[in-house]
Amino acid sequence: MNSAPALGHVVFIGAGPGAADLITVRGARRLAEAEVVLFDALTDPALRELAPNARWIDVGKRGFCHAPKQTEINAVLVRCAHEYRRVVRLKGGDPSVFGRLEEELLALAEAGIGCEVVPGVTAAIAAAAATQRPLTRRGLGRSVSLSTAMTKEGSLAEATPPSADTEVFYMAGRQLAALGRRLLAAGWPADTPVLVVSQAGTPDQRASDHRLDALAAASMLHAGRPAIVTVGAGARPVLGGADPAPLAQAAGRTASVETPTD
Amino acid sequence: MNSAPALGHVVFIGAGPGAADLITVRGARRLAEAEVVLFDALTDPALRELAPNARWIDVGKRGFCHAPKQTEINAVLVRCAHEYRRVVRLKGGDPSVFGRLEEELLALAEAGIGCEVVPGVTAAIAAAAATQRPLTRRGLGRSVSLSTAMTKEGSLAEATPPSADTEVFYMAGRQLAALGRRLLAAGWPADTPVLVVSQAGTPDQRASDHRLDALAAASMLHAGRPAIVTVGAGARPVLGGADPAPLAQAAGRTASVETPTD
Repeated sequence: MNSAPALGHVVFIGAGPGAADLITVRGARRLAEAEVVLFDALTDPALRELAPNARWIDVGKRGFCHAPKQTEINAVLVRCAHEYRRVVRLKGGDPSVFGRLEEELLALAEAGIGCEVVPGVTAAIAAAAATQRPLTRRGLGRSVSLSTAMTKEGSLAEATPPSADTEVFYMAGRQLAALGRRLLAAGWPADTPVLVVSQAGTPDQRASDHRLDALAAASMLHAGRPAIVTVGAGARPVLGGADPAPLAQAAGRTASVETPTD
Repeated sequence: MNSAPALGHVVFIGAGPGAADLITVRGARRLAEAEVVLFDALTDPALRELAPNARWIDVGKRGFCHAPKQTEINAVLVRCAHEYRRVVRLKGGDPSVFGRLEEELLALAEAGIGCEVVPGVTAAIAAAAATQRPLTRRGLGRSVSLSTAMTKEGSLAEATPPSADTEVFYMAGRQLAALGRRLLAAGWPADTPVLVVSQAGTPDQRASDHRLDALAAASMLHAGRPAIVTVGAGARPVLGGADPAPLAQAAGRTASVETPTD
């Protein structure tokens, strides 16, 4: 054995949207080399099989008595890099998109710890693939916007008028009805198509179609589940004629979308 | 052997930004099962090793005497699904983002051919990971816009005023100076930070920092290379104090960014 370096190396890995096989090959390899893995509550437990001998530390809500502050996570990360040579920080989706990566990169840089970022499949893209609804379309394909529906303080963010052909909202699960009202008030047409996908990319995925003015109907269907809301061109089914079958327990304009399988 | 079904099954796979190990584990598995693979000129040749026994058909520019029309690609895809049971359509980045997926899904649906979409790492996200520049930042993290810089007809698209904290332009390599001028004219501040990354995620990646009003300096550095242009909050280095070393051959405000490695 060589003498251990003074400090470990941290690899941030995007785990993808949920299913363990949607991590990248590079991500899976780095994970297999890890001595310690810091993960969030949302990460698919099946990913653990990729690094069965590593120490796994839950820095999400379940691992602490309260929701940990970002500064606490930073401190655990720096401490791990002093104890282990190969540290992995596993994040759901992609670390560069709504992943608070900047804060953790800064903490490591200030501590003189080197790192690498392995990208992942972000939730908006996973939802598009799983429902076969491309985010860009013919003649309406020039822009896609990814936004958080919630502010840092946990309230619903201000809605803005349409600025992209397709807008995708992350973290909107708890406030679907309110999000719909705000987008209408901001000038979005009432008949704008909206696709809601919860637990995108997992076996338990649920997807539903709505008109913007009937988005409230999605609340019950997706209650308590992390949801991605796609609004505009990218929400339309590719086959206009192939309307999904209406979902029995849902109201009016709501309809289920089958997750395509073999 | 079972009797072969009348029609094959097509799997669209996002190959990721370039390096073969940035494909997902699921994508690599589906590729290994393929009997025939339709790919574009930009796809990393190392991916071929994942399906060495498949027939590989180049439907990008190099495979035809001219740039094939989308209808020709659709026709090849449908023909392959009549000849083979397991067809893979491999696309650079992610198929749902500027990948013309809608057209190909429609052609297959009209021919009664079933399919699946396996998502991939899109170029904007790969560039962010490779340069350690998260697309969302503290206090400036509510939205990211992905746009094409070019219109379908191949001319530079109209620029719009800033609508997101970070805007990422795809396919901007040929017209960096003109893109900079249009964004300035549309109201973006002259000192907006701009990061240009060409061949993102490949060993030959090149990255440079610019002010918006000096973006023209990027043209020579990235000439003839597929480039991603990140404008706004997500373009800033995470460590404000750690300015990258100026690149000898580049003018004034241009500076190189080292691709982080071990």
